[in-house]
Parts: sequence; C-alpha cells; structure tokens
Amino acid sequence: MEATADPLKLKYLGIDTLNEHVVYMLKDCHICLSEGFESLNRVLVTVNSYSIIATLNIIKEGILKEGEASLSECAWHNLKVKEGDKIYFSHLPLVNSMHAVRSKMYRKSLSENDFQSILKDIVDEKYSNIEVAAFVTACAGDNLNESEIISLTKAMINVGQKLNWNKELVLDKHCVGGLPGNRTTPIVVAIVAAAGYTIPKTSSRAITSPAGTADTIETMTPVNLSIEQIKEVIKKENGCFVWGGNVKLSPADDIIIRIERALDVDSEGQMIASVLSKKIAAGSTHVVIDIPVGKTAKVRTEQDAEKLKYYFKVVGRAVGLKVKVLITDGSQPIGRGIGPALEAMDVLSVLRNEANAPQDLKERALQIAGAVIDLAVNSTKGKGEIIAREILESGKALTKFMAICQAQGGFTEPTYAKYKYEVRATSIGIVTEIDNRRIAKLAKLAGAPKDHAAGILLNTMVNAKVGKDDLLFTIYTHHNGILNYALEYLKAEKNIITIQ
Amino acid sequence: MEATADPLKLKYLGIDTLNEHVVYMLKDCHICLSEGFESLNRVLVTVNSYSIIATLNIIKEGILKEGEASLSECAWHNLKVKEGDKIYFSHLPLVNSMHAVRSKMYRKSLSENDFQSILKDIVDEKYSNIEVAAFVTACAGDNLNESEIISLTKAMINVGQKLNWNKELVLDKHCVGGLPGNRTTPIVVAIVAAAGYTIPKTSSRAITSPAGTADTIETMTPVNLSIEQIKEVIKKENGCFVWGGNVKLSPADDIIIRIERALDVDSEGQMIASVLSKKIAAGSTHVVIDIPVGKTAKVRTEQDAEKLKYYFKVVGRAVGLKVKVLITDGSQPIGRGIGPALEAMDVLSVLRNEANAPQDLKERALQIAGAVIDLAVNSTKGKGEIIAREILESGKALTKFMAICQAQGGFTEPTYAKYKYEVRATSIGIVTEIDNRRIAKLAKLAGAPKDHAAGILLNTMVNAKVGKDDLLFTIYTHHNGILNYALEYLKAEKNIITIQ
Repeated sequence: MEATADPLKLKYLGIDTLNEHVVYMLKDCHICLSEGFESLNRVLVTVNSYSIIATLNIIKEGILKEGEASLSECAWHNLKVKEGDKIYFSHLPLVNSMHAVRSKMYRKSLSENDFQSILKDIVDEKYSNIEVAAFVTACAGDNLNESEIISLTKAMINVGQKLNWNKELVLDKHCVGGLPGNRTTPIVVAIVAAAGYTIPKTSSRAITSPAGTADTIETMTPVNLSIEQIKEVIKKENGCFVWGGNVKLSPADDIIIRIERALDVDSEGQMIASVLSKKIAAGSTHVVIDIPVGKTAKVRTEQDAEKLKYYFKVVGRAVGLKVKVLITDGSQPIGRGIGPALEAMDVLSVLRNEANAPQDLKERALQIAGAVIDLAVNSTKGKGEIIAREILESGKALTKFMAICQAQGGFTEPTYAKYKYEVRATSIGIVTEIDNRRIAKLAKLAGAPKDHAAGILLNTMVNAKVGKDDLLFTIYTHHNGILNYALEYLKAEKNIITIQ
Repeated sequence: MEATADPLKLKYLGIDTLNEHVVYMLKDCHICLSEGFESLNRVLVTVNSYSIIATLNIIKEGILKEGEASLSECAWHNLKVKEGDKIYFSHLPLVNSMHAVRSKMYRKSLSENDFQSILKDIVDEKYSNIEVAAFVTACAGDNLNESEIISLTKAMINVGQKLNWNKELVLDKHCVGGLPGNRTTPIVVAIVAAAGYTIPKTSSRAITSPAGTADTIETMTPVNLSIEQIKEVIKKENGCFVWGGNVKLSPADDIIIRIERALDVDSEGQMIASVLSKKIAAGSTHVVIDIPVGKTAKVRTEQDAEKLKYYFKVVGRAVGLKVKVLITDGSQPIGRGIGPALEAMDVLSVLRNEANAPQDLKERALQIAGAVIDLAVNSTKGKGEIIAREILESGKALTKFMAICQAQGGFTEPTYAKYKYEVRATSIGIVTEIDNRRIAKLAKLAGAPKDHAAGILLNTMVNAKVGKDDLLFTIYTHHNGILNYALEYLKAEKNIITIQ
C-alpha cells in the first residue's frame, strides 16, 4: 500500500451487483482527485484492517454526501462493515495470476500452478468480471488440452471444500445438458439408495429453464439443507436429493459458470472440470455421466459425445474418480410435465407404478440407475438394470423415496395451479416436431419455476397421431393475468407443435 | 419485445459506470419477480419510445422506493430521460454478433462483415463490458491474421466518422508507446505546417502517465476544439494540435481500448487497427509511425518492431493510407521535464533555439518532421530533415507554432509550480539507470497531470558523471501536503536513479 489519504465514512446503499465488489465514491471527493481514480478502476479498499479489491463506480451527486463512500452488497457483507466505518483506499497492482491468463491468450499451455493461482484469485474475489471473462474466453472452445483440463479440475478441487463420507463406495450421477422434463434424479436416487448404496445427490435450480431438478424436488420436500443436515439424511437413508447451491462446494466454478452463461460460451474443458470437481467435492467415488445426444440437446452429434466421453474418463482417472459414461437418446423431451410440480407428478407416477406413468421417464431412470449399480459392483452390463427394475416395480423405490423426503423434512403432494387453459389441434395429422425452446418459454411465461405449480402438461409427443380438437397441451397458471401473457405469446408464435 | 408489464418511474441516482448502461431496480419489484430478472442480466429498457440494452443491478432497500428504477449516468444521458419518466422492461435475445466472437474463440478467421457487425453493436452499446472483454481476449496477442487486421481496421473506419479536408496531401505522425517526456508533436506540427503542408494532429490525454501530449499542449493553448473550430485553424494555419477525445472519431476504439487497459492486454492487430483507423478518420493520407525500441519502451526488440512495421505498411496500403515507419532509439527518456508544463518548457526551448535546449528532443523532432516531409514529396531520405532543420533553426517553426496557438485560442507561457524540492546525489559516480516507471510515478504523486505545473525536472541522464550533492532532479508541486506524499514515496523507493 502506498500514499493512503484520509478515510471516507461508509454509508449503506444496498446495491446488489451479484458477486462483484463495487465501491461507490463521489466524483469530487479528495481521494478520487488526489489518487486519480476513475470509474472502473480496480482499487484496494480497507475497513477495520481487512482489505478487498473492488471496482470503482463514481457517483456524481445525490445519494452520497461529501466524505461518504459505499460498497455493493457482497463487498459490504464480505468485509463485515457497518454504516459509519472508516474506509481507506489505495491503488493496487494488477492481479498477478492475470499474467497466466494473458499467456493463455498467446496459446501457451498453462500448468497446474497457473490454474491454482488463477482460481485462488477468483475465489478471493480479486478478479473483476471482465478479468473472469478474459479467463473464460482464453480457455473457451477446445483451447484446453488434456493435461490442462486435468490441471483445471485439480485446481477447482483444491480451492473448494470436500465432503468426506468415510465410505469406500459413494455413488453419483450427472446429466450433461438436461432435456425438458428429464427428471430421473429422484427416481435414480431412490432406487440406488434402496439397493443399499450411498448416493448424496446435489442438484441445481433453474437458471434459464422452467425448472431445475432442485426446484422440482422442492415441490415434494425441502432441499435447502446444510452440510450437517445432509450428513444426517445420508446416515439414516443412504441417499438424498438437495440443492447444491446451499453448500457451495465449488466456489470458483460458481463464479466462472455465471460469466460463461452471461457470454453464452461453452467450454469443453471447463465443463468437464466443473462437473468432475463438484463430484469430488461431494465426496463421490463412482459417477455415471449421462450425455443425451440430439438436435435440441446440448450435445448435438455422436462424435462430440464420444470426445466428451473420452475426456470424462481420462480426467476422472487422473483425479481418482471412477466414471462411466452413457450416451443416450436426446431427440425429444422426457415425461409430460414442464414446470416444477408438473414434473414432480411425473416422478411420483413412475415411483407409484401407475398405469399411465410416462414410460420414457421410467425407462431412462432404470437405464441410469442400472448403470450406477453396475459401476458400483463392477457387474456385467444389464445386471444393474434388472436389480433397479425389481426395486422400482416392487415399490421399494417409492418407500425409500418417501423415507428420504421424511428425513429431509417431510413429504408434500404437489398440486396443480388454479387456472388452466387447454390448447387443442386445429387440424388432423401427425406431430412432426415439438419446439422445446418455445414450449419451455411458454412454461416460463405461465410462471414456472417461481410459481411451482405453473407450467405445461404435454398430451402428445413426436410421431403421435392427432385429430382435430384433440388436446395438445394444458397451460397451468396461478393468476389469470399471467395466463394472458402466455396466451399472447402463444398467439404470436405459430407452430410450437408442428402437425403435418 | 414480449411480455411487457406495467412501467416503473425513473429516479435520478447519478451513478457513473463509465460507458456501461446499468439499470437499477428494487429486488422485490413486480417486474423483477414476474420477469425473473437477476443482477447482471442484460435487459432491454424503453423510455419515451427509445430503447437501450442495460445490465441490471438489483438494489435491496433504501435508495429506491417501490415503483422506482434508475439508470447509470451514460444510460440516463443516452436515453435523454428525466425524473418521473416511465421505464419499460423486457427480456432480450443475446446480441447476434457475439456468434462471431464465439467462433473466434474456436480460432475461426473472421470476415469483414463479422467485424462490422461486432463493432456496430459495440458502438451501439449493445455489448456489456464482459462481452467486450471476450472480444478483446479472443483477438488478443497475435490471434488476428493479416486479412483480419485489415477487416478490423476497415470496420473501425466504417463505424466512426471521417473528416474531409478536400486536399490531396494530409500529413500525420504517430508514436507507438511514447517515452517519458518525448513531446515531439508540437515541434513536428509547427515545422510541417511552416513548410506549407496540412497536418491536423489530434493527441490523447494521460491515462496512466504523468502527461499526455494534449495535457502538455494545454499548458500553452486550448486543445478542446470542436470539429468546426479545428477546420478554422487548419484553414488559417495548415496545422493544429488538439485533443482527439473531444471529436470522438473512433467510438468503437475508445470502448475497446478502455477494456484492453483494464485487462492490461496488448493486441498487435487491435493496436494497428486503432492507430490507422484514427488516421483515416482524421482525414490523413500520409502518416509517419515512430516505433521507439528499448527496455522501457512499449516495443522491446528490433524483431517485434520489424513485424509491426510490416503490418502497418500492409494494412495502411489496404485502407489507402501511405505509411512510413521509423524504428527509433527508445532506451531512455527524451527531454528533461516530466509533467505537462515542464515538458512544454522543453518544447518551447527547442522552438526558441535556446542554447540549453534539450538536444535529444530537438534531434528526434527533426528526424520525424524530416520523414513526414520526405513522405509527402516522395523525396530522397535526408532531404526532408534538411528542410526541417532550416525551418526550425531560422525561427519559422516558432512563428508557426505561435500562430497555431493564436488560432486555437491564444498562447500562455507555462509556469513552474509554487513548491520545489531538490534531490541531490548522495555519492559520486556515473548514472547507470533512470527507472522511468518510478520517476513517472513520482511525477504523478507530485500532482501531474492534474496539476499542470507539477512534475519532475531531470538534471542528469544515463552515462552522466555526478559528484556528491550534485542536483539529480527537482520535484515541483502546488501544495506542501502533496509534496509530503511524494517525499514519502521517495524515501521508500531507493535507486530511482542508480549511480555507480
């Protein structure tokens, strides 16, 4: 630190910039003048002897008075400050590990140490968002080689925490780029746990989709469990299905993924590192990775899927994780519901062995559960699926599912939303396509995932015959006003379901 | 646009985020809830039928009341809004040209159309800072090939404006990575204009240095001229030396350079495109590019300089600009002053042919002015320098300089700052090194460039003999308090000047 001046006093403004530390100062304050600070400068701020790096936003007048400064929500909380605390400022050198990011721009291969320093600095919030964007971009596409992906994965593991179950076998599953409605997780967890294996499953919430697995499960049982609570559930029932965001096992990955999403950038290497580091962090030893391949799926060709499969296995081996990869059919949605409660009803219908349960969801869940069991006991292919089917069809999976829900805080039956609107065929023909993107959008306009019970219930599928006025799908909403939004969209967008 | 809801009312907060459009909304406002907006989302906001894309920052409580929203300074001004205006929100698709940025991450070569769309979207403020960072990173280092650099340069020219002088010969000069004190520009402009050629020179202000050329000239004459005023000056005197930032000839470049600086990323291609597009925009036809090579200069090896030279010539030819490149000695500072007024005194001393004028500055200025004249008349090498020397030494350059200053608004003699502090040698020996980075830092701590008269006056140079107590340099400041800062730094940093 150098040339510190008189401090300013903190005033609370409550501006949420998500993960970025932002400091707000008046344009004409003596510190901006004497230090030559400008908007977007990165400065070192110190309060009560603790320091963080923050991005400067300069305020012209009004909400701050002379002698005052403020911090964005995350900086305010990370520094544990209160109004009136004195805040000191100084210039800061560039973050050291950005050297490695810059050399990556020149296509130099990075070492494990490089990745370790970069991820440490990212977790310590030393990177501005544009610096994270530069890292993400430099590593995007297929710019990371095999050894770099391994190094990145190890670095991600090192900067996070790791759960320890003191068991030799801890099972897990992961689906790369989920299909709409494809909620196999609660069924797979119930089957595998009922078979006597440990499967501490964490899932995500929806970001841009109408429902994440955690949102779906939350319509039946609490998912915001602490690590201690998760340990209790596993001790009792072998399995759980909770929200991963509550435990923050891979903090670097959380920051990187946010920028990747904002840029809509895919990175093979970062995706593999992200998935496998989270599995290691969750304490898993054996993982089945499901890669659905199809026109509307994340992975579009068999060739891409094979490449991913190779990397998952090689990197898994390097970090001590046994990985089995399934390449599955991703050509159309699985199940009927789109939206948390409607998807949960599909799940319960399969677990309860109801006659009209969606068979595609049942078979996909059995395939994955079977692969998990095969991987665990190193059995021949197919044996696991036989075990899984017996557990599901005998009702043992349902019993285990209900027991896990009880352990997580109780079971609630999901319910339909108050209002519904039926969309019917205007002509006779064959369903040739269901536009997943637009049907998902419609479900979101109906209120999913925030309104758990809102969404779409499909009543047809690709290749089905429909007659005039046959029911194609039902829109469920909580408010008539919201239903109007959805109907407006429906009117504007022709051919969400194509009938020929 | 889709699913617009009831509007919010604008409240002024005055938060300056530099060039990024930010919209501030309350966390629990009905729009965030119904649209599922989160911090950092990019949203389309519409006020009085005009729309911009903005990054969302969510405010928890306090500075906004229910039903209110606010915009950052640049968004507020670009939309020309006032308090109480109704602001509408909607989701927006990803910016289309980001497709091209993503394909660049996969090392695909971009077309002129690709660059055109990207730069158009950047100028229209459609890119968030992290998206600009992704573009900068994908094109950083030597990731652009020759045809891409040409396309980028053409696109930069197309998205900006272009001055037209209706003359066949419009001359210009540019220095790549200036050395401390190297203020040849006002001398070169005076000589070339006195020789009868048109030279409408725009310069930049200091960003991280103790003085930019525009700051130095401003201690003698106004530099904030409008395009109309520049045209008047050129009509009268053939030459001008004004601040380029006032005319915004290359708006895309301004945004890109800001992010490059924040990332400390160099890009050969972007630098060439930036320099040449600005010359074309200024209406120049013939340009001399000076590339100083040295340990403390921007370009460090002869080989790098040769590569740059090649690209400058090839790209220049492609956009119809005649380019001559000088590779010069960049091993030490040029002139004695560091800080606007002190550098201006060096310039005047050379123009006035004073006996103790810094000879290194004089010779460098003659070398460049000579090359500009040679380029203009296509004369043999050396002839231009003879003409230049005659113009300078006869006093014609001084007369022209004063005439240009009068045309720009009048001449003022630069003055020394009130306080000074002399730093003397503590031992006898030879000066082996002057740390340019730290001497520049000291000049900044003394108040340069904001205090025009503040800075450092060097009284020695590399290879000079010094006796004990000989004067090494003088620090000039406006306030005793600021002098104390500088002295504290001086005490902490040994060997800013090394004597052996």
